[in-house]
Amino acid sequence: MPDTAIPVIPTIPVTPAVLESLRAIVGDKGLILDDQGKQPFVTDWRGSLVGTAAVVVRPANTEEVSKVVKLCYEQGIAIVPQGGNTGLMGGATPWPTHQGILLSLGRMNHVLEVDPVGYSMTVEAGCVLQTLQETAASHDRFFPLSLGAQGSCMIGGNLSTNAGGVQVLRYGNARNLVLGLEVVLPNGEIWNGLRSLKKDNTGYDLKHLFMGAEGTLGVITKAVLKLWPAPKDVCTAWLAIRDPQAAIEILSEAHAASEDNVGSCELMSRACTDMVLRHIPGTQDPLKADTPWYLLLEWSSSRPRADGAEGMSEKMEQFLADQMEAGRVLDAVIAQNEAQSRNMWVIREAVAPASRAEGPGLSYDISVAISKIPQFIDQGVKAALDILPSIRPYPLGHIGDGNIHFSFMGPKDMDRATLNQYTPAITRAVNDLVTSMAGSISAEHGIGIDKLDELAHYRSKIELDTMRSIKRALDPKNIMNPGKVLRL
Amino acid sequence: MPDTAIPVIPTIPVTPAVLESLRAIVGDKGLILDDQGKQPFVTDWRGSLVGTAAVVVRPANTEEVSKVVKLCYEQGIAIVPQGGNTGLMGGATPWPTHQGILLSLGRMNHVLEVDPVGYSMTVEAGCVLQTLQETAASHDRFFPLSLGAQGSCMIGGNLSTNAGGVQVLRYGNARNLVLGLEVVLPNGEIWNGLRSLKKDNTGYDLKHLFMGAEGTLGVITKAVLKLWPAPKDVCTAWLAIRDPQAAIEILSEAHAASEDNVGSCELMSRACTDMVLRHIPGTQDPLKADTPWYLLLEWSSSRPRADGAEGMSEKMEQFLADQMEAGRVLDAVIAQNEAQSRNMWVIREAVAPASRAEGPGLSYDISVAISKIPQFIDQGVKAALDILPSIRPYPLGHIGDGNIHFSFMGPKDMDRATLNQYTPAITRAVNDLVTSMAGSISAEHGIGIDKLDELAHYRSKIELDTMRSIKRALDPKNIMNPGKVLRL
Repeated sequence: MPDTAIPVIPTIPVTPAVLESLRAIVGDKGLILDDQGKQPFVTDWRGSLVGTAAVVVRPANTEEVSKVVKLCYEQGIAIVPQGGNTGLMGGATPWPTHQGILLSLGRMNHVLEVDPVGYSMTVEAGCVLQTLQETAASHDRFFPLSLGAQGSCMIGGNLSTNAGGVQVLRYGNARNLVLGLEVVLPNGEIWNGLRSLKKDNTGYDLKHLFMGAEGTLGVITKAVLKLWPAPKDVCTAWLAIRDPQAAIEILSEAHAASEDNVGSCELMSRACTDMVLRHIPGTQDPLKADTPWYLLLEWSSSRPRADGAEGMSEKMEQFLADQMEAGRVLDAVIAQNEAQSRNMWVIREAVAPASRAEGPGLSYDISVAISKIPQFIDQGVKAALDILPSIRPYPLGHIGDGNIHFSFMGPKDMDRATLNQYTPAITRAVNDLVTSMAGSISAEHGIGIDKLDELAHYRSKIELDTMRSIKRALDPKNIMNPGKVLRL
Repeated sequence: MPDTAIPVIPTIPVTPAVLESLRAIVGDKGLILDDQGKQPFVTDWRGSLVGTAAVVVRPANTEEVSKVVKLCYEQGIAIVPQGGNTGLMGGATPWPTHQGILLSLGRMNHVLEVDPVGYSMTVEAGCVLQTLQETAASHDRFFPLSLGAQGSCMIGGNLSTNAGGVQVLRYGNARNLVLGLEVVLPNGEIWNGLRSLKKDNTGYDLKHLFMGAEGTLGVITKAVLKLWPAPKDVCTAWLAIRDPQAAIEILSEAHAASEDNVGSCELMSRACTDMVLRHIPGTQDPLKADTPWYLLLEWSSSRPRADGAEGMSEKMEQFLADQMEAGRVLDAVIAQNEAQSRNMWVIREAVAPASRAEGPGLSYDISVAISKIPQFIDQGVKAALDILPSIRPYPLGHIGDGNIHFSFMGPKDMDRATLNQYTPAITRAVNDLVTSMAGSISAEHGIGIDKLDELAHYRSKIELDTMRSIKRALDPKNIMNPGKVLRL
């Protein structure tokens, strides 16, 4: 547990009578009572948070979710909803004082409908993200949400946390990929907002309220997702660049040069690339150029490459030549095949495992306006070095979204306990800087437990009060994922 | 006024003392008291609704808005916020029983910042939409919101109503064009959510709650808008097509063929085209083909057309040949110059004035899932003809958004009063059909006054209750645009 005081949450216990009522709703196979069985549900993915729950309840359908929530509402029992349990902020992990239930959506994993002509599909909350990507692909369509945990995270959790990932630049965050939702409200009623509509101006847009609420306002049970044409002509390039300012200028010009087909634009540092090459077997340096900054740039089009016609790679070649001429790109290589493209992506995606192998570190998931990124990196690195001069910065991230994973490895040979002594001061310095630049202290990972107090520290009273008013209005008994996102 | 019972709204009058307090805040030039001066503000754009207000208050900046709202909150005085007063549902028009103020944002019309590299601009709520389009263009950028009233509607109203228009297919509704908002809450506090962030996962997304709320939850005072690359290579085509089913199949394949550069896709009927040609001087039939259905298809790319390279028009030619081969397109013409393209657009945009010239009519702004449009048109036309066999249907609209302006001209020589006798039955039949197909009874025009009772009739109690909970939580005194969207 971090140094976060446990908030006041309902502590009505699950009595044997309630347990029998739950059993009557979901059956024996919908309940997990033994400690060993509950352990993976009450421990967070990173292993840093451990909570507790009287019982893990695994309903088979929306009606069972509704009955379970209604029972809890009547009794005042707290509920922690959970999808694939891959969140990084503890939003799906119960507090150690939690005496209620953990509601796992994992059995609700059916794709209910795919409409290729209408570019949409209707799915249950417990569908694994990668399964949905594959389902879309099998209909020659594309579901763009893509992130490290896609093999186990579930779409309900992705939507509840408004997940980000490497395709946000082009397609937007998870909330932009949704046409409609079905949600079980804190009183157990089912809100049927499962509309396949691109346009619907009929009152308050409730779906946007549930997305990003991390399960504190209700349980997402189904969704209608948007689909896109499948990419058919993809070009991946690895660029040695002058500096982060060049990166945003390159991106700014890439939109037009690619005919708005920029898919990803990821900034990497030399230190970061070296760390991956050191720890991840089979990775190769795409470029020998020894410069401090690199860009992974991917353009993709849904139009198949025709013989003789200009494709993405010809457009990219021309663009890179222009950018070299302008002094922004120092050297560059275009992937000539799937293996080369894959190698570039592995370098980007393997930063997390490589940094774990390297030793203890710190990371901040921040965003600022895109044009302020160079200034932020510059000042943020200085601020951290002022506190701990031997810390090793390796900023990287989704530069096209203004989202930097502002990361540091501890000094060589410094252990976690020692590094932890510097952490609060560095965190404060980084988040102060973010706030002074009107940025976000959590660009894509959310609040959960980890940033509960940081949010309270940095957000205005007016904003926090407005959120609290909404929470109280929709969940008057504070049973829905209590003590997450907001302290009441 | 339609046959809508006046809802219960606060009726605290503006006393001379309150008037003096208002004068102290906004000065003499911020107040309009005489009936002639107030008339354009209390009458709706169509001339069909006439309300009243004690005073029109025109603040010069956010601080003045905040002070005015705070005063009204303390006194319990109702506020009707208004932008360009071009809405079609009466959302900005006071009820005849309104005794409070009308708050006009028109003096707050400054563009505060343009960030071309970051693709954003920060503007005040009273900026006229067309001015913002021109501001973006002068920085080689594109602000895509585009609709008939763009010469006088204001961005604050566009955002409050989540406006649609002819670019939604590619760029989304107004809510998708926004990074951040500043809002004066019903208690007069200023919520500063004016962030230029593409990603920000820090609690409930309040901005999406204010957009589409039609001023019932607060007053939008500033916004950070997203910008896009300016279009450089645009191709407009006019297609005679087999039927509406062909239209959605054409669109479905157009995404890939254009490399995701479909800008607009508007369905028109022969009857509708003829009506425009009859009434609007200077318009010319782009195609002589006498088929019942046409499609206006526009592709645009931000990449300038290079000599010898394949541009949008070559891609369109190839695509149209393929679609003719498939039997979906019967005949087609590609605009060869700006004048020909303009003529195609005028035919689409002049439907509203042409129908006013033609005589009394009815129109429903509905949406269904895209793949259900052919079935909806078919059944909807039948339902209306069953009620009034000589009514003349001319469905048209944003087929790529699933949004049809389902319109009818009254029978030849039937006057408005007689047509009005059939209106309630036709409205019920159309909206019943929409609802049975899980569609929306207001795709882009909103609720306002006109659809207050229709929304209450068709939406579930759970959804209405959830909206009411939010309204009461944020506006406990019900002073903010009371009696719009929802009856409390």
